[in-house]
Amino acid sequence: MRLDVYFTPAELPPPATLTDRAVVVIDVLRATSTMVEALANGAKNIFAVATTDEAVKIAQNIGRDQTLLAGERKCVRIEGFDLGNSPLEMTREAVSGRQIVMTTTNGTAALAAVASARNVLVASLLNVDAVARELVEGDQSIGVVCAGREGRFALEDAICAGHLALRLYRRLGQRKNWSDAALAAAQLARRYVSSIERTLRRAAAGRALIELGFGGDVEYCARLDVHDIVPKYRDRQVAV
Amino acid sequence: MRLDVYFTPAELPPPATLTDRAVVVIDVLRATSTMVEALANGAKNIFAVATTDEAVKIAQNIGRDQTLLAGERKCVRIEGFDLGNSPLEMTREAVSGRQIVMTTTNGTAALAAVASARNVLVASLLNVDAVARELVEGDQSIGVVCAGREGRFALEDAICAGHLALRLYRRLGQRKNWSDAALAAAQLARRYVSSIERTLRRAAAGRALIELGFGGDVEYCARLDVHDIVPKYRDRQVAV
Repeated sequence: MRLDVYFTPAELPPPATLTDRAVVVIDVLRATSTMVEALANGAKNIFAVATTDEAVKIAQNIGRDQTLLAGERKCVRIEGFDLGNSPLEMTREAVSGRQIVMTTTNGTAALAAVASARNVLVASLLNVDAVARELVEGDQSIGVVCAGREGRFALEDAICAGHLALRLYRRLGQRKNWSDAALAAAQLARRYVSSIERTLRRAAAGRALIELGFGGDVEYCARLDVHDIVPKYRDRQVAV
Repeated sequence: MRLDVYFTPAELPPPATLTDRAVVVIDVLRATSTMVEALANGAKNIFAVATTDEAVKIAQNIGRDQTLLAGERKCVRIEGFDLGNSPLEMTREAVSGRQIVMTTTNGTAALAAVASARNVLVASLLNVDAVARELVEGDQSIGVVCAGREGRFALEDAICAGHLALRLYRRLGQRKNWSDAALAAAQLARRYVSSIERTLRRAAAGRALIELGFGGDVEYCARLDVHDIVPKYRDRQVAV
C-alpha cells in the first residue's frame, strides 16, 4: 500500500493524478470533527461549499426551513447562520434528519481541492480508526490531505494523519511505500499519544479557539475513536 | 523569540512580511549542504540562480574561465557544467578562491523566495550549530524555510530545522512563540537524533540519490556540525 500525506493542500499533486486514489481529508480543528459529529448524530448530509453566498443559495434552493446553515469565518459563526463550526452544537436534537449546508475557512477548501479523487473519506480523531479499517479493505494508493491553517502546517491535522498511518501499519505490517510526511506524521502521533488534548490546546488553532471561548471544542476534538462512521464526500456533499 | 518553520516554500507568508525577519534556508539534500561545504573549503562566493541559461550567462559575464558552473537537474550534473550538486566535489583543491555559479532544482528556488528578507542565512546539518549561535545573538523573529522536494515536505529538511530549533531552545530556554511546524520539527529531530544517516537514506530524496550512485553524498550530508560557518545570501550571492 502506498501512503502519501500532504500537510497542506498546496502540496497536493495535480488533480488528474488523484483520480484513481482514495483520498482522506482531515481538519481536526474543526471542520471534519464537526462533520463527523453531525453525521453520527443523524444529520442526513452536509453540503460543503467554499463561500457564504454559495451556502445561502444552496439552502434557498433546497428550502431554507428544511436546511441548517452552518459555518464560520475567523472561528466565529457566520451572521444569520443557524450553527457555527462547533461539534458541540451538532447534537442529535439539533441535526437529526436535517440537511446541513456548511462553509468553513480551511476544511471545505481542502475537500474542494480533492474533488477529482475516486473516493474521498472524511476523517478526524473522532473516527480515525473507522477510516483506517475501511482503507485497509480496499485501496492500494492512499493520499491523506491535511487542511492545515491558512495554508500552513497544523499540528493537530498532522497528528490525526499519523494516527491513521499507525493504524494502517498495525493492520498491514509494512510501511515501505510511505512518503516522508507519512513517516513524520506517524512519529508525531506516537510522540503525542498520551497528551493529545494538551497538544491541541498548544497548537496555533487550539490557542485561537480557546481565546475565543471554544476550549470545549478543542477538548472534544482531541478524543480518539468516539464514532464508528466513515463519511464520504461526493458531488459536494458529505454523507455516511 | 518568535520561531516559524515552513516545511515548503509554498507555506511562506507574502514577501513583504519577511523584510524585518531573519530567514534561514535549508536544503539538506543537497543544495545548502553543498554550498556550506564549498564555502568552508574556500570558495569566494556562490551565485544562486534559478535556470541553467541564467547560470551560463552570469558565468560568461564574470569570465567563464574564472568561474565554476555547478548544478543539477534530476540530481545529475548539468551537461557542460564543471560540477554537479555534490558536497564531495567541493574540495579545497577544486573550489578554493573560486567563484561558483550554481543552479539546483529546489534549493535555489527556496533562496529566491525569501530574497526580500533582511537577513538570509544558509543552513544544513553540516553547520546548524553555527547558525543557531548567530541567531541567538540577534534576531527576535526567525523564519526557517525548508526547500522540500518538488513542493512537498522533505524529512531531512524538517530534521535540520528541528536541530536548529532545539539548539535555540537550549540556549534561550523558551519556546512559547514557536509555530506548530517548529514544535513538530523539534520532535522529529529528537526522535531521529541517533539515526540521522539511516533516516536520510530512507527519505525520498535520499533514496533517489542512492539509486543514482550518490550514497556518499547522503552519508556526508547527515553529519552534524562539521563546519563553523554561517553563509549569507545577499544580491543573489551566497558568501561567508
